[in-house]
This record gives sequence, structure tokens and C-alpha cells, in this order.
Amino acid sequence: MKIAYQGEPGAYSEEAIINHWGDKAQAIPLPYLQDVFTKVENGELELGLVPVENTIKGSIHLTFDLLQERAVLIQGETILRITHSLIINPETKFEDIKKVYSHPQALGQSRTFIEKHGFEAVNTYDTAGSVKLIKEEGLTDAAAIASSRAAEVYNMKVLAKGIETHKENWTRFLIIGKEKMQPTGRDKTTLLFIVEHKPGSLLKALHAISDQGINLLKIESRPLIGKPWEYIFYIEFEGHERDPEVQLSLEDLEKVTTSIKILGSYPRA
Amino acid sequence: MKIAYQGEPGAYSEEAIINHWGDKAQAIPLPYLQDVFTKVENGELELGLVPVENTIKGSIHLTFDLLQERAVLIQGETILRITHSLIINPETKFEDIKKVYSHPQALGQSRTFIEKHGFEAVNTYDTAGSVKLIKEEGLTDAAAIASSRAAEVYNMKVLAKGIETHKENWTRFLIIGKEKMQPTGRDKTTLLFIVEHKPGSLLKALHAISDQGINLLKIESRPLIGKPWEYIFYIEFEGHERDPEVQLSLEDLEKVTTSIKILGSYPRA
Repeated sequence: MKIAYQGEPGAYSEEAIINHWGDKAQAIPLPYLQDVFTKVENGELELGLVPVENTIKGSIHLTFDLLQERAVLIQGETILRITHSLIINPETKFEDIKKVYSHPQALGQSRTFIEKHGFEAVNTYDTAGSVKLIKEEGLTDAAAIASSRAAEVYNMKVLAKGIETHKENWTRFLIIGKEKMQPTGRDKTTLLFIVEHKPGSLLKALHAISDQGINLLKIESRPLIGKPWEYIFYIEFEGHERDPEVQLSLEDLEKVTTSIKILGSYPRA
Repeated sequence: MKIAYQGEPGAYSEEAIINHWGDKAQAIPLPYLQDVFTKVENGELELGLVPVENTIKGSIHLTFDLLQERAVLIQGETILRITHSLIINPETKFEDIKKVYSHPQALGQSRTFIEKHGFEAVNTYDTAGSVKLIKEEGLTDAAAIASSRAAEVYNMKVLAKGIETHKENWTRFLIIGKEKMQPTGRDKTTLLFIVEHKPGSLLKALHAISDQGINLLKIESRPLIGKPWEYIFYIEFEGHERDPEVQLSLEDLEKVTTSIKILGSYPRA
């Protein structure tokens, strides 16, 4: 089974695929998040795995925007603990390190460690890509910040593990495909809606869910393009779209919204 | 009056300061958004202007996070229409342009124009900074995407105006300071709250506002650091914290939240 992800080999997304599917999966790296949606949308690859939320950084806006634009469905989710390592060329000495290369988010999440050692932080496009970079350039005065797996992938040395400031660092990934999932009894549903731009309309929409005793898990808003200061709301709640109480909720939601798109009902992680 | 902003001279934030205050203001450029909060927090500068939301890109997360962390208050807001220009060195010929330099957001917002002309997009850290870059490097095979004002600031030539794909492109900026504003009769209030992690708690909090007939304008969530899948909610609503109905709302909100921070009541733009 081939599963598309964004990033270089050794990326956290690739690790999430291996953790979730084990040997059954072949992870296919692609340069952009848009590419993952495109390959799944046009049927070239059956599944894709995309990050949707990190417990430090928050929601990944681009994923929400692409879920709205593209003809794909959420088929599942998986959660990965993010822990950053300091990675070097095997011949590099700790006292020679002057610069650390990584994606701005990983640098930000490791700021306490970087400042303690007086390293200069250098932004790159990707965590695993920065390991590839210091290997290809043969840098011995620099380190990269990425997963320990990235060090394995590129045959590099892990000098320090768990260098992130906040340990409660988790990323939730969505599995996207073209198929609707069957109810399992432990599901969640993600959908988006647009309400009329008038007082109380958001609250009415949330009531459509809560009045059936359904537990709202998350709410996110994104701008409605072309309508300044109006929003598309994304909600996640417990239950499957085929559950009777969810069907009643959806009927009520139809009445108080101008647009609804069910992005998927799928087993909870 | 000195007002801090993040960016290079010619940045959209500087333009927003000039539009809002005219000749009365001296705009002070600083490298990072954190610096703007720091200078205001420690009293070195009286006011700062920070972007909070764009009608294409959505909310600026870092601004919300800094409003939560820092001891500043919102004293006002101002809105700027964002329109991008293609800017070149005066001796550059249109047919020689191969690359366009700008911040990834400006490049993304001008993608239709860039693709139509077959330009190669090159990411930089700043829109106005990319004008400065092609000037200092004397590039005649490249252009920058920034505001027309940036072209004036650096004595460069505007080759095309309004190259953004979506014309409804506006950025809302907050004015931050240390003082509470008096009610004007046309105010809004921004606050953050945290609720207990149990079903229905967000809805109860929103009811505290709506039950007094107060109009909710915006809701945003950010992760609660250290508590995976829990959130800090930011809301904006009509009215001033000294208005009787807002005071009643705040009393109700106290009862259903574990934490509240009023970020400011200020005149609406």
C-alpha cells in the first residue's frame, strides 16, 4: 500500500506512516502538501497522510484550506509524539558546532537548548532536509535538528535527544482518501459549515450539535475568501455521520447554515 | 509619537501606521514581532502596531500567543487594503525578468500573475526587504513583490500594480499599549478564556456573552501548552468592558471558565 506524505525521507510524517501501518505501507515523499492532496484526488495514490494540528504550534491552516477545496475524505487519524534530536556528521566534534539548521518550528521548539549552547539558528524548509543538507555539504561546524529516525535514514550521528523545550509535543495527522469509512462505534466526524453573517448564527449551529448530546471536540475558523471578516467554521465531534443522533444534528445544522461539507467520519485515534 | 512595528521600512505595517496617524507618528522598524511587544511592555515605546488577521491568510497565531503572554493591552485597531506591486530596478527591462522575490504569503497571493508570466518565485523574509535586496544586489533579471510605497522608499520602479489574485485582501492590525481606553459608544472587546476539558463547556462560555444580547464577532483557538488537545479561546464582541451588559456577561463567564484575561476594550475601526 502506497501512502503519500509531504517532506523528505526521515520526516515526522514518514515516521507517523511507519508507526501506523508498519511494514504494510510504502511511504511516498512529495515536495508540497498540495501534491499529497492532488495524488489522492486524482486516484494516483490510494491514501495520503497530512498533519492537521500540533499541541504547541496549533492547527495547520493549509490542511484545513485543502480539505475544503479538494475532493478527498478523511478516513482516519494518527498521533505522533514529536521529539527533536541534535544530529551531526559522525566526524563533527561538539565544541566545533556553531550553527544549527532546521525548520523554523523545530528551531523555535528547541530554543532553550539552542540558546544555552550559544548556537546560531539557521532556517531551512524541512527538518529531515536539514540533515540531508549538512551531510551533502559535509559540514563539521554545524548540526541539524530533526527526528532520530532522520539520523538513521542518512547514516548520521545523534548527539542529543529530547532537546525540545516542551515535552507535551504531539502532532495529529489525518489519513485522506476517497472512501467513506464504516461506523466502528468509536468514531469522530469532521465537517465545515458557513453561517449567515448575522448575530447568533454560530451559536445556533453549535446548538444543532450539542442539543443531541454530541460532544464537540474542536472548532477552527478560516477566512471566507472574497467576504472580508466572514468565516468558514470547521468542527470535530464524537460520532459517525450514520449514527441516528448525528443525522438529527445534521438536519438541524442544514437549517441554520448556508453551506455544509462533511469531510469524513472515521475511527478515533 | 513613536510607534513600533515589525518589518523593514516600506512594510505594510508602516503604511498602516501612516494611514492611521498621518504626520503625528514616527514608525520604528524592528526585526521581530516579539520585539514590538517587548518595547511596549517595558515602556521603551508607547505604542506598537501588530497584524492580527488577514482576509486571505487568516489569523496571525503569533500575535494571539504574544497577547496571552505579555503585559500589554489592545488600545485600538486599524484596517489596511493590501495590494501588491511588481517592483524593479529602474534599468530593468520587463523581458529580462526571470525571478520574483518576496515573502511566501505575497508570492502565494500573486501566484496567478507569476505563473502567467512564467517567473520563478524566490522566498524571502519580508516584502519590503525583497525590494531592498534587489536594489542592494543591483539585480536586473529579477523583480520584487511589495507595496508601491516600498518602491518609493527605496527609489525603485513600479512595473505593475494590483497583481494579487484576490482583490478582497485586507489586513487588520491591533494597536498595543499599556493604557485602558475610555468607552466611546462604538467599541469592541477582545478577551481570552480557558474552560474545563468537559463536554458543553465552550458552549456555556459563549452563552455567557450571547445571553446578554452581545454580538460575537470572532472566535479563535490556540493550543494550551502542556495540555494536549485543550485550547485557549480568544473571542471578540461588540461593547466595552464598562458597559452594564458586558459586566453581566463577564460575571457569568467567570462562573463557567477556569481563567479569563481581558486583552482590551477599544474603539472599532
